[in-house]
Amino acid sequence: METIKVVALCGSIRQASYNRGLIRSAIEISKGSITGVEIEDGDITALPMLDTDLEDGERFPPEVEAFRQKILEADSFLFASPEYNYSVSAPLKNAIDWGSRPPNVWADRAAAIISASGGTGGSRSQYHLRQIGVCLDLHFINKPELFVDAFNPPGKFDENGDLIDEETKQRLRKVLLSLQSFTLRLQGKSKLHV
Amino acid sequence: METIKVVALCGSIRQASYNRGLIRSAIEISKGSITGVEIEDGDITALPMLDTDLEDGERFPPEVEAFRQKILEADSFLFASPEYNYSVSAPLKNAIDWGSRPPNVWADRAAAIISASGGTGGSRSQYHLRQIGVCLDLHFINKPELFVDAFNPPGKFDENGDLIDEETKQRLRKVLLSLQSFTLRLQGKSKLHV
Amino acid sequence: METIKVVALCGSIRQASYNRGLIRSAIEISKGSITGVEIEDGDITALPMLDTDLEDGERFPPEVEAFRQKILEADSFLFASPEYNYSVSAPLKNAIDWGSRPPNVWADRAAAIISASGGTGGSRSQYHLRQIGVCLDLHFINKPELFVDAFNPPGKFDENGDLIDEETKQRLRKVLLSLQSFTLRLQGKSKLHV
Amino acid sequence: METIKVVALCGSIRQASYNRGLIRSAIEISKGSITGVEIEDGDITALPMLDTDLEDGERFPPEVEAFRQKILEADSFLFASPEYNYSVSAPLKNAIDWGSRPPNVWADRAAAIISASGGTGGSRSQYHLRQIGVCLDLHFINKPELFVDAFNPPGKFDENGDLIDEETKQRLRKVLLSLQSFTLRLQGKSKLHV
Repeated sequence: METIKVVALCGSIRQASYNRGLIRSAIEISKGSITGVEIEDGDITALPMLDTDLEDGERFPPEVEAFRQKILEADSFLFASPEYNYSVSAPLKNAIDWGSRPPNVWADRAAAIISASGGTGGSRSQYHLRQIGVCLDLHFINKPELFVDAFNPPGKFDENGDLIDEETKQRLRKVLLSLQSFTLRLQGKSKLHV
Repeated sequence: METIKVVALCGSIRQASYNRGLIRSAIEISKGSITGVEIEDGDITALPMLDTDLEDGERFPPEVEAFRQKILEADSFLFASPEYNYSVSAPLKNAIDWGSRPPNVWADRAAAIISASGGTGGSRSQYHLRQIGVCLDLHFINKPELFVDAFNPPGKFDENGDLIDEETKQRLRKVLLSLQSFTLRLQGKSKLHV
Repeated sequence: METIKVVALCGSIRQASYNRGLIRSAIEISKGSITGVEIEDGDITALPMLDTDLEDGERFPPEVEAFRQKILEADSFLFASPEYNYSVSAPLKNAIDWGSRPPNVWADRAAAIISASGGTGGSRSQYHLRQIGVCLDLHFINKPELFVDAFNPPGKFDENGDLIDEETKQRLRKVLLSLQSFTLRLQGKSKLHV
Repeated sequence: METIKVVALCGSIRQASYNRGLIRSAIEISKGSITGVEIEDGDITALPMLDTDLEDGERFPPEVEAFRQKILEADSFLFASPEYNYSVSAPLKNAIDWGSRPPNVWADRAAAIISASGGTGGSRSQYHLRQIGVCLDLHFINKPELFVDAFNPPGKFDENGDLIDEETKQRLRKVLLSLQSFTLRLQGKSKLHV
């Protein structure tokens, strides 16, 4: 089976972000117990705030060019989307919008969303992101969905923001397997359906 | 190429519905100028209002059983979704909910949405329907989207509710081709992407 | 202080509905420990499925006329909205759509939403309902929101569907007080804000 | 009648933005033909990307402090919200999120949204913004809604991004009057309803 390349995007840029912890855990899981999935952290912190006046003809600022190139080379995407004010975070939306400037580098790839947040665990940000994905031409997996309630006991992250909850790790692993399967299916490389 | 069976569902149950007109036009187009797509009108008018007290063990009322069987046999779905009060219509939601009663008969199929409505042409109902589809485990095509502004000139439907606008017919044809392609792709029967 | 008349609408029509239990509890709370709020159960079970062919000029079927009259006389609304497939239920949408037929009888009133459901407690149905309310011209209270997770322990309802959880009752009481305050504020009868 | 102070926020930071043009036009209209409405442009271009690591105890970076102070002093808000990828822009979401950091400076004020965009004129960004507003505790006017289709003929803006379409100006004026009325109503200063 072919190895797929997943670019992971964390919507929070603060150091100890739980959503970044989810991505670290996903990378660890993919290395330890999944064959055929390679996850790369697609850093978005260096991107300037979207301003099309920064574009020079078809040239983007260098940080944007580098980011777009990484997106272009991915087989699929893993969004770790925190929920700020019932929607996606500004840094994540900013990265998405830079990637969508013509030519849109997101198109026709599989994607999954995970989130750690208070309340309903980020679900509101996930449904907004799914609508955004219609425009980007992303194909999200439907199941399983992963909403991690980060603030209610039992604690799911340690003080470094690392995921320590075993059950959540198992659910995260299932998300990755579903993303792998859907990515291959869309690429016509597998007839196996999850 | 294999022929796919698409079940079309009209969210309006009034006689002269423009959305029903869109489905009639889709059937005509599929017969006349598309190879490999067969569209059947999945009538929802006979369904009782959802009330799980009507279920007898795992038996549904006969109209519901018949409807669920039709959904189960489809390769994919075409929703003609009018917009009532910025969301999907009650008759369509009712049909959807009956189909989702365990075991969910919608799962893992491709789908497309078209709509004729005032204002923004039904787009608000389409995004609600897409969120509903996450739960149903439907995979919607992203593009093209078809929002038919039914009430502004030039008139797009005649007095019988039949679609008469040639440009809209061409756009509808592209929706059907995209749905066909995505259906086959998800079934592992084609590597051709639209 | 003037007594406001709240019409409560339950989106589920099955007998033992938890959402109906929430309304019974709201009525009990309003009688027992709130001055100035009278809640009436606005029964929607008799309404036919929306079909504008059933309208005769400006006359609606008798059950619809009676329902519309009740809505027209309310000071504000309490929606108990279960979540079916990540959106509002068909019976509730049906009642809403009948009320919005011209002239729209919902307009310019305050409203609150409560829900009991699995998963995220009905939040997805609440945000769809809020969007629907823009079209209806309803003014929803923002806070507090009440999502009752009906299926995870500890049990919040008894076998009759009656709310038995004291903390949830306190939260429901706060919703009612917020609705009362916002209703009076919109009516220009109070400058007190919650 | 008391003069209300409206802070206007443009979601695009590019120079020739049509949404900025809408705000300039709103300011001109309020000066020319509305009594009692003063609109101030709440510039968001200087704000850093949200990163709570930038907060020092309860102190925010100086640009953020200044922005938050302006929001705090407003009677209501006018959002000019472009639609990027079917949702709100990153710069607008960023400003919103800075304002919501505790203590939330947006709370309990009236607001209106206008937008100029392609396709459905920005409606998708407006409904996302309305959901965000539930968390911020904003009270949006329901009607009229203003979606300006910026790219289809006839041209509604000149080459400087200034609104030149007379009918759109009239519709914008009605939005401002509705916002004024709802602001006063929520402040208990008027019983007049639009």
